[in-house]
Amino acid sequence: MIRVVLVEPEGEYNVGFVARLCRNFDVEQLYIVNPRCDLRSALNFAAHGKEALLKAQVVDTLSQALEGVDLKMATSSDADNPGDILRLSIPPWTAAEVGRGKRTALIFGRESVGLTREEISMADFLLHIPASKEYPVLNLSHAVSILLYEFRREANRDQRNVNA
Amino acid sequence: MIRVVLVEPEGEYNVGFVARLCRNFDVEQLYIVNPRCDLRSALNFAAHGKEALLKAQVVDTLSQALEGVDLKMATSSDADNPGDILRLSIPPWTAAEVGRGKRTALIFGRESVGLTREEISMADFLLHIPASKEYPVLNLSHAVSILLYEFRREANRDQRNVNA
Ligand SMILES: Nc1ncnc2c1ncn2[C@@H]1O[C@H](CSCC[C@H](N)C(=O)O)[C@@H](O)[C@H]1O
Ligand SMILES: Nc1ncnc2c1ncn2[C@@H]1O[C@H](CSCC[C@H](N)C(=O)O)[C@@H](O)[C@H]1O
Ligand SMILES: Nc1ncnc2c1ncn2[C@@H]1O[C@H](CSCC[C@H](N)C(=O)O)[C@@H](O)[C@H]1O
Repeated sequence: MIRVVLVEPEGEYNVGFVARLCRNFDVEQLYIVNPRCDLRSALNFAAHGKEALLKAQVVDTLSQALEGVDLKMATSSDADNPGDILRLSIPPWTAAEVGRGKRTALIFGRESVGLTREEISMADFLLHIPASKEYPVLNLSHAVSILLYEFRREANRDQRNVNA
Repeated sequence: MIRVVLVEPEGEYNVGFVARLCRNFDVEQLYIVNPRCDLRSALNFAAHGKEALLKAQVVDTLSQALEGVDLKMATSSDADNPGDILRLSIPPWTAAEVGRGKRTALIFGRESVGLTREEISMADFLLHIPASKEYPVLNLSHAVSILLYEFRREANRDQRNVNA
């Protein structure tokens, strides 16, 4: 079970796209912490994911959004700086393996400033999508798409094993 | 070497996001066939990928966009319908393996109607990202992000082997 958690998202289009992605990848739980944009306008970008947005849980704090999960993974474009233990990261494929069969929250930060160090320290792991050394900062909804794709791939691998 | 080919894109934001993704994943070649939206406005969504958009090749036909590559991969949300041989597909991880070390064009269709059958028949492979049976249609730029992520992963696997 995956829960997508958006912390204080600022862009309508990103929230809409993420709702669509939840539908695309059969993710049932979308939590939005203290949105900084208009969720009504976000519907314009959700295509057939409108329902995922309408039933999203809107909460005030990150702690509330993390209630009831087994595993919490924060995400960041900024990871593995020498000497900074808080920012040691795992890649998506490892994260998907670690999360297998667990209720896993994937936590995404603000478009402008990402997650705070305090928010990252609430997670069990920091997840980083390897990208260009010069410009590793993906747009929020594109980071979401890559992780939902990778977690789905891992879940289906399970299924094949179970059936085999 | 990856070349991203967008066929008649209709949404400014998608073109801008794709330019950003090219920069995020160190993709040097972006071709845009007969754009149906304003490329100037697309710059607003490119963040630090503006240069990738400014140096994109804008051409009139898909054939022109495919000159000089070894391998052509069309993409579609609609694949593997019984009895339709044109739509037998490979998943992203297989595509990335097949494309290893080759000049590979990844061809993406219109937001409204995708690629025509004629356009798909110009490719060597059809690539489909496994997604929800109920709603497998990803937004254009999110399909791009997942494939660039997967091809980069495969390229880096190479590197590790070479260095080992
Ligand atoms: N890679 C990582 N991802 C998430 N949390 C981590 C982490 N490495 C350490 N932590 C957690 O971070 C906390 C202390 S690290 C100290 C960071 C401090 N809050 C700061 O802002 O500088 C501990 O709870 C530890 O378990
Ligand atoms: N390479 C990457 N790996 C993992 N998550 C990423 C990512 N690029 C972007 N994201 C996600 O997208 C969100 C918005 S990007 C935030 C960028 C901000 N300038 C910063 O300083 O962090 C991030 O908080 C993270 O959740
Ligand atoms: N699941 C998926 N696998 C591969 N490519 C996809 C995809 N979902 C969307 N795309 C890409 O995004 C583009 C726009 S989506 C096009 C949808 C259109 N209604 C149709 O009938 O095809 C597609 O042409 C394809 O390039």
